[in-house]
Amino acid sequence: MTETQTRLDILAIGNAIVDVIATADEAFLEREGLTKGGMQLIDAGRAEQLYSRMGPGREISGGSAANTLAGAAALGARCAFVGQVADDQLGAVFTHDMRAHGVRFDTPARAGDPPTGRVLILVTPCGERTMNTLLGASHYLPMESLDEALVREASILYLEGYLWDPEQPRAVMRHAIDVARAAGRKVAMTLSVNFIIELHRADLQGLIDQGLIDILFVNEEELLCLTQETDRERALAMVAPKVPLLVVTFGPDGAMAVRGGERFTVAAEPVERVVDTTGAGDLFAAGFLAGQAQGRSIEDSLRMGAIAAAEVISHYGARPDADLKALVATKLG
Amino acid sequence: MTETQTRLDILAIGNAIVDVIATADEAFLEREGLTKGGMQLIDAGRAEQLYSRMGPGREISGGSAANTLAGAAALGARCAFVGQVADDQLGAVFTHDMRAHGVRFDTPARAGDPPTGRVLILVTPCGERTMNTLLGASHYLPMESLDEALVREASILYLEGYLWDPEQPRAVMRHAIDVARAAGRKVAMTLSVNFIIELHRADLQGLIDQGLIDILFVNEEELLCLTQETDRERALAMVAPKVPLLVVTFGPDGAMAVRGGERFTVAAEPVERVVDTTGAGDLFAAGFLAGQAQGRSIEDSLRMGAIAAAEVISHYGARPDADLKALVATKLG
Repeated sequence: MTETQTRLDILAIGNAIVDVIATADEAFLEREGLTKGGMQLIDAGRAEQLYSRMGPGREISGGSAANTLAGAAALGARCAFVGQVADDQLGAVFTHDMRAHGVRFDTPARAGDPPTGRVLILVTPCGERTMNTLLGASHYLPMESLDEALVREASILYLEGYLWDPEQPRAVMRHAIDVARAAGRKVAMTLSVNFIIELHRADLQGLIDQGLIDILFVNEEELLCLTQETDRERALAMVAPKVPLLVVTFGPDGAMAVRGGERFTVAAEPVERVVDTTGAGDLFAAGFLAGQAQGRSIEDSLRMGAIAAAEVISHYGARPDADLKALVATKLG
Repeated sequence: MTETQTRLDILAIGNAIVDVIATADEAFLEREGLTKGGMQLIDAGRAEQLYSRMGPGREISGGSAANTLAGAAALGARCAFVGQVADDQLGAVFTHDMRAHGVRFDTPARAGDPPTGRVLILVTPCGERTMNTLLGASHYLPMESLDEALVREASILYLEGYLWDPEQPRAVMRHAIDVARAAGRKVAMTLSVNFIIELHRADLQGLIDQGLIDILFVNEEELLCLTQETDRERALAMVAPKVPLLVVTFGPDGAMAVRGGERFTVAAEPVERVVDTTGAGDLFAAGFLAGQAQGRSIEDSLRMGAIAAAEVISHYGARPDADLKALVATKLG
């Protein structure tokens, strides 16, 4: 892999989505037939129904890879995002926020229906989030949205698994992988959620088997789902040899990186009060990738992930509120 | 004043607006020529420019009287709101939030331009907010939006001073005063901000002189501006005899109510950390009015105001996050 100077650290492709965050009690989830902690796709009719029943919201830009870039940019990484919003007010909000976080974002807004995607997020006591996603325009990402020069300019191409299901964005991501690899760039991917793995296991496993993924982010559930294993060790043994760098998050139990047979672990950063766990994994990836972009050690990159994740679960919303760079400087130096 | 049973406690007329809240440092305010702590009206061009320069935002429904109702409803008052949103995404957000707070809101959304109003709020360290308001559809409130039966059904008609400037809403509010008084209801008003007083001093003073306002909310600056006095005591002596109940807020120095020559004071409720002072006055009015609606004493109503205000300045956004009813029950019984 060549190590020429690049103008960008991370180029990400992901959902361009606004979160609508409300608190809810467990009884509400039960009445609505929702599985606590889960993520499900909903259609416009269900979105309207659920929205009319949920509490007052706060709107904060989201999207898994977009959140990761917001965090990585806050930590000093040079980032660009590719994702599809509609030409509407929520699209303008998403676009503004991305740029205000210091992330380059030039994908033109799409005219007409569907509107910009949104996630109705219900946060139960203790901060657990249950996500109900109306993907909207996000799934209509056209091939023209991919600026190949930009892919070649970025050290890391980062792909959001949530976007592997719809055909158009998947084609864009496949092509981006080819462009990145041909330019000697690294490809990173998060598998995002079990239902995507279930739907595309052979395909995703194929990417891994072919050595197309340099850095793979999964949580423990996704690791087990991907390998159809129930034992963590067996699952690790199946995946780790196939990716140069495997990062597995364990929620409150920290995270692990495996590189060339060597394991590195980090504890979760202590948090005074968990307010809203939305974005914990996204910001872990942000800290880890920013650390890697800065040429830090795996240990330090893991710590940066843990610090960024701890910040984001301390408040509502999946984008950093505090000065992440200052936090890392204080805690890590 | 008759005391027949009413179906509503408070009917409010005010701006229907969404807040866009970002943090900023003092240098940013200076560069943009903004006066810290102030509120200014901006046009669409300036809104776009300022938005493009400010940090990532979080969108939370706002509007002064609307915030007051959200708080009063949380405290158990039966509330209805009259205000104008456009038929767009931010209008849907405002409408949802109002109803989710338990406030009746039936004013039909307005088709076409301008869009739903928004306030670009810059929160500087220590929590002070500087507001830049694009009024949008808010100022196009038509006379048909006023359901006279609803006015007659509410114990208190509550008017937002911010809306006294544009002609249409002012006409709606004037008519609402007539309907409320003819039905023997109380009329409450907040003067909102000095520039409204400067523009409409004779008119507003006229309402007070004619005895049309039963409960008047002002902060100290507005009291001095209204009376063109520099001395608090002289200003109080000029206004208090003309309104049955005068409520003056003093920010961190608490508040005072004057009724029939008798004064009642309350200290500000202690706050661990002031995050964002947006909505402090609105929520003070919420607590006070809810207390009055429950037939509580002036002293208790002032305490409820102080408790509600303290809650809202402890987090971003001008709508209550915590369970206000439980807070009041704990602190006041």
